[in-house]
Parts: sequence; structure tokens; C-alpha cells
Amino acid sequence: MERSQFLLSGGTLVAQALTPQGAPLDRAPSMDKLGEPVDWHPYGVPSTYEKSVIRRYVPFLTATPHSTVSFTPLQDLDGIITPNGLCFVRDHGGTVTDIDPATHKLLIEGLVDRPLVFSMDDLKRFPTESRIHFMECPANGGMEWRGSQFQSLQITHGMIHCCEWTGVKLSTLMERVGVKPKATWLLAEGADAAAMTRSIPVSKAADDVLVAWSQNGERLRPENGYPLRLIVPGWQGNVNVKWLRRLKFGNEPWMTKEETSKYTDLLADGKARQFAWILEAKSVITNPCPENRPLGRGFTEITGLAWSGRGKVKRVDVSTDGGRNWAPARLQEPVMTKCLTRFRFPWNWNGETTYIQSRCIDETGYVQPTITELRKVRGTNPIYNNNAIQTWRINPNRSVDNVQIR
Amino acid sequence: MERSQFLLSGGTLVAQALTPQGAPLDRAPSMDKLGEPVDWHPYGVPSTYEKSVIRRYVPFLTATPHSTVSFTPLQDLDGIITPNGLCFVRDHGGTVTDIDPATHKLLIEGLVDRPLVFSMDDLKRFPTESRIHFMECPANGGMEWRGSQFQSLQITHGMIHCCEWTGVKLSTLMERVGVKPKATWLLAEGADAAAMTRSIPVSKAADDVLVAWSQNGERLRPENGYPLRLIVPGWQGNVNVKWLRRLKFGNEPWMTKEETSKYTDLLADGKARQFAWILEAKSVITNPCPENRPLGRGFTEITGLAWSGRGKVKRVDVSTDGGRNWAPARLQEPVMTKCLTRFRFPWNWNGETTYIQSRCIDETGYVQPTITELRKVRGTNPIYNNNAIQTWRINPNRSVDNVQIR
Repeated sequence: MERSQFLLSGGTLVAQALTPQGAPLDRAPSMDKLGEPVDWHPYGVPSTYEKSVIRRYVPFLTATPHSTVSFTPLQDLDGIITPNGLCFVRDHGGTVTDIDPATHKLLIEGLVDRPLVFSMDDLKRFPTESRIHFMECPANGGMEWRGSQFQSLQITHGMIHCCEWTGVKLSTLMERVGVKPKATWLLAEGADAAAMTRSIPVSKAADDVLVAWSQNGERLRPENGYPLRLIVPGWQGNVNVKWLRRLKFGNEPWMTKEETSKYTDLLADGKARQFAWILEAKSVITNPCPENRPLGRGFTEITGLAWSGRGKVKRVDVSTDGGRNWAPARLQEPVMTKCLTRFRFPWNWNGETTYIQSRCIDETGYVQPTITELRKVRGTNPIYNNNAIQTWRINPNRSVDNVQIR
Repeated sequence: MERSQFLLSGGTLVAQALTPQGAPLDRAPSMDKLGEPVDWHPYGVPSTYEKSVIRRYVPFLTATPHSTVSFTPLQDLDGIITPNGLCFVRDHGGTVTDIDPATHKLLIEGLVDRPLVFSMDDLKRFPTESRIHFMECPANGGMEWRGSQFQSLQITHGMIHCCEWTGVKLSTLMERVGVKPKATWLLAEGADAAAMTRSIPVSKAADDVLVAWSQNGERLRPENGYPLRLIVPGWQGNVNVKWLRRLKFGNEPWMTKEETSKYTDLLADGKARQFAWILEAKSVITNPCPENRPLGRGFTEITGLAWSGRGKVKRVDVSTDGGRNWAPARLQEPVMTKCLTRFRFPWNWNGETTYIQSRCIDETGYVQPTITELRKVRGTNPIYNNNAIQTWRINPNRSVDNVQIR
């Protein structure tokens, strides 16, 4: 449906309350008294009317509250930036809240010419870089592999956020310590109680990895790695090691817990798919969704988020008939590499049962698959790397369900 | 100085603490106990080590704490996004904290075919748009016209922030109400105790103005206009009316208090410069600055922010000799229209007294002037629209002063 048709048709779709010409709007109560002095909060907080816009967690998904996950309320967010207070958190040994940046150190060792210990001030003397990238836990949507279906966008897709990160390029530090030519792998270690460790190929480390201290302008939040973390653009969240304390160069992967018993995909034949770090192209409609019912029949903007760990989003298609027909959505500029992209699709809901879907095509030409296509290759054992097309069913009573079709 | 020279030279500039090959880093205390459960804060807050990173205000700048200003701590921020909790605030009747979005209304009236009242839900049924724009109060740096010199980047330049805004284009609403061809001006009114009002030409309203409800993903903060405000990209902050309740179309400006006794520039000949809404190209170095001393001699990255109310930043030049010689800085991508642009300039400080400056050139070719050039045209009476080149003097003891030269 053309936007102009909508705007000029009938006048019944929006703003039904027609005010007689010249009749004044009631005076707002807020105009009759002075507001709060502006220094009422040196660090601002949201309106009390927004108190339901919070991270949520599902206790039974993990063994203890120290090893669990909270979810970003994507249903309440517009645009692509996630405010720091709402960024999902996945921790393996609880959230570290007490690292003093004045004493924090980063050791770089192993196959290097000059093993070095860096203070935060040392790191800040290097040239810096800022980039906006998404961060996604590979378990995002993992409950769907075997058919669980949470009736919540926040729970099915909320293990993702998108921030502007600032730090020093790891390649700059690699040049400084002199990484030896025979080094092919890197071990990154966090200062949490889990001593979170992941192996990363040197080729990726030398490409676009950041050693970052800043998130959306300000310093990292404690739960997101304060004072220092790795940003590994487009790769699984757990590889982006938080509370970073050590980088060790070697010539083989370390086979840590998080790349053997965890973060591997158990296939139908009993073999495990390992080191599947790159987050493939994915998308989801954030409005309508289970938490956001359509406001009524007629014009409804379908909007959502798309991303790819391999580069830029090239196109997002939307279907309003359960995947039979697709049409391209409008992408909000700027479209950036390994970054959330907001898409919008004008639509006219006729009030009947409708299945809506989105699919992302990235700049490599990869097309986001259906869950059926994914299961054909990987079975139903995996927990990680579900990038399937999401289907929302809009019911005549305006409720919206998470369903799996095809 | 070339980056590669720095990285390979001497090894004395950074990371002096050389660790013997293989010697382990001390175990971090945070590794010996579990962290906090991840749901410790459903809406996250900064680290306790960052408690000095706050908005600040200067009581004597305005008559009452209901009509004053708080400043963004630019010295503590990286990149271009300002976190919502740190966005500067300028209020004229105090901060309105209690507008219930369920009852808030926007009236559009005057020279229109269909005067209409919109609820928040009505507005959300229109096609939406997200854009990242800066917001600057024209009094930013206003104390400098007559020579006052606060020794603080936060106070001299902190009346600016940069967020991702989402809402409906005003042009869409104008189409909906049917603005009459003879309408040339628009009055925007806020629901605060000041009933903040500004006149805006219809040509700007139809161009890129947003009626916005979202700021960096989440809903507007109370002090930034919750639940609805005008975003007038590149124009003085006060025109971006907060707590927006009314838009009236007419055929002449309303000559409100905020465009007659306030927000006009009193020139040397006694005449006033009125409706100078567009914020001209400007820039400032955020590191080093009075709050950020150089960490030592040797390599120092000069970094800062540049912006223009007329479009994109084309180039930023940096001088390290008080304006005699200039060299272009590197601009961080993406460079967006009417948006902060982060610039970086590698430099080698010799430890002596040095005057550092930046100047912005925007895509129209306009070059940011010196304060002397500005005073030649506008005298020393104005309070607003000071976009002069800022000079920081770095002293041998590493302290940094705000000085005016030339």
C-alpha cells in the first residue's frame, strides 16, 4: 500500500478525534506548576511511566543466577542503538562489579617478541577507534530448535544489543608486542570467577577486533565488561571476552570449556560442530510481536531489526502470508557492517489471521533460512546458532503468537 | 608523526612495565569469588568507579534552578553517541516529570484543512523514521563572547549531545491535516510551565523535522521532553520544543518571548539579530582539555568532536602551534548530516607549552571562525551562537588552560 494512499484515504485510520476549528486543547496540568529543578538527577533515569521497560531473565534456563542471561526488551526499542541500561547480559560466573580501573592490567604474552603488561592509561595512549556493532549470544532463540516457543520477542530474540564501542585496535597492540609469524591463535581470558576463555584465530584478531573501554560514549557498564573487554565484530557474544585481563598468542586453539562442552552444536550423527563463531544473517519483526499487538485494522507499519556477522545487510524481505510472497522492506540509513539495521514495511492489516515474517539477505548473498531448512542440516540437538526466520501469527482479536510453520 | 613510527620506536612511550617471558599476571581478586547474579539491576547503571561522570550545572548562570542548564561531560565521552543519562538539559520552567503518555495529546491547528488531536497511539500508527542528530543550545560557549573563560570543557562546550531519534516525520502529519498553501509559519508549544513556544518556517517543518518519542532506542527521558518532542535537525536546541502539545500553522511568526527578548543577538549598533536558528559549523578538542591532561610527553592522540547545522562535516583541521599551521584530522566513519563527527589526530607532545586548536569545515565550504573574526561582525554583546575556534594551552606541568588568542 502506498503511503500517500494511506494518508489521504478516509481519515478513519488515525486521529479520529476531530477538533472543531479553533477550539483549544485543554491546558495541561504540567503547565500550571514549575517542573523539577534541572539538577534533580546528575545521571538521568527513565520516566516512571516506563518502569516496565527492563531486562528480564528466565531463571530455569540456567543452573544458577550467577550463570544466566537477561534479555533486551526489543519490543520497546526503536532505531538501532540499545541504551546501556537495557543491554542483555550473559555471565558465566556472575557479574563482576568491582574491578578498579586504576589497578586493572592487561597481559599480552605467548608467541610475541615483547610480552607486556598494560595499564588502562597505557592503553589509552594508543590511537583509538569507534564503531557501532551488534552483540549477540549464539543461544539467542536456542529454545526453538526443539520446538519450545516463548510467547515473547524479548525472550526469543532479546540476547542481542547494539552499541558504539571505542577502544584500541587489537592489531595496534599486536604490532606493539611483536606477534611472531608462527602465531596462529590467540587466547582471551576474563577476570571473572569463570576465568572465561576463548581461542580466536590471529587472522580475525588482526582484522577488526577492538580492545574496548567505552560503550555508547561512556565507559563500559560493569555487566558488560568494565573496565575492558574484547569486541570481536559479528562473532558470538561469548568470544567478546569481558573483564579482559590476558591475551596469549599460540599456534593451536586451547580447547577451553566454552569451545568444547559449550558453544558447540551437537549434530544428528553425534558429531559436534565446533568454532562456528560467525553469526549468520538474521532478522526479526519487533512490531507487531507478542508484546506489541497491532493498534487496529488498517495501516500498520511492520518494523524490525536485521543483522549479519559477515558484513552489511543488503536487503530485508517481508512476507504477510506465511512465506509465500515476499517484498523488500525499506532499510533505515546508515546501514553499517556487523551492525543492527532497522527495516520498515508499510502494511494494511485486514483484521484477519495473518502470518508475518522477515528474512535478511546480507552482502555475501546469504539468505536467512527457515527453521526447517536449518534442522535438515543440523538436526534438533543444537542450542546455538539458530538464525531461522521468525513467524508471528496475528489473530483477529489482535493478539500475536510465536508459531513455527514449514 | 606516523603511527608506525610511534609503534616501533623505543618502546618507552607506552607499557613500560615489561613482563619477563612466561611470568604470570597476578590472579585478579574478582576471579576468586562469584560475581553478582545477573538480574541485580533490571535497568543497569554505571560502575561505582565512574561516579564523577555526571551532568553538572553552574547555578549563577540563570536566575532559578527551574530555568537553568546542566552540561554534558564531553571530557569523559568517546565516540559520538551521548548516553541518555548524560544528555545536557536546558529548561525554562523546570523539568516536567509527570506527563502520562496515555493521556498526552498533540493538537495540530491553524491554517489546516482538518485540525486534529493526536494521542500517542495515533502518532505511532504513522510511518516512522530514525536519525542520529546532535542537539546544541545556542548559549553553548556564550560566556566567551565577553572573555569569560571557564577552565572546563564540560562548561564551555557541554550544552550539546547526540542521540538517535525516532518518531514520525512532521511532513507526514502536515499531509494528514492538510496544511493550507498560504501557511508559511508554524508555532510549536510545550506542555511545561513556561509553555515554551517557538515559530518555525514551514519550509523547515516540511524538510527534515521529526515529531519524536524515542531517544537512543528507548522512550525520551523526562528532562528531554517525555513523551513527545520536536526534533529540528541542526537548529538551536530551544526550537526543538520538548513536551510538545501543540502545532499551529499561520502566516507570520508569533514573536514569542524566546525569539524576541531571548535567543536574539544584540549587535554593537543596538540592533538585534533574530531567527538565527541554524547552528554553524563548530568543533572542539575533547582530549587533551582542562579535565584531561596529557598522560605524558610523546605520542598523544588529539581527539574531538565537530558538527554543522547545515549538513555533513567535510574536514576538520588541527593546529598544534596556535593557528599558524593546520593539518587535516582523520574523521571517524560514519559521517552523518547534522550529527556529531569524531575526529582524531596523531601527535607527539614535546613537553613544552603548546596551543592546540581544531576548526571544522562543513559541506557548504563554511570554515569555523576565530572569536576575533566573530566579534568583528557581532561585537561582544551576544550570548548566543558562539561557534569560535577553541584554544587549549598545554603547560609543561601537563595542566591545560582555556585561553583566547588572536
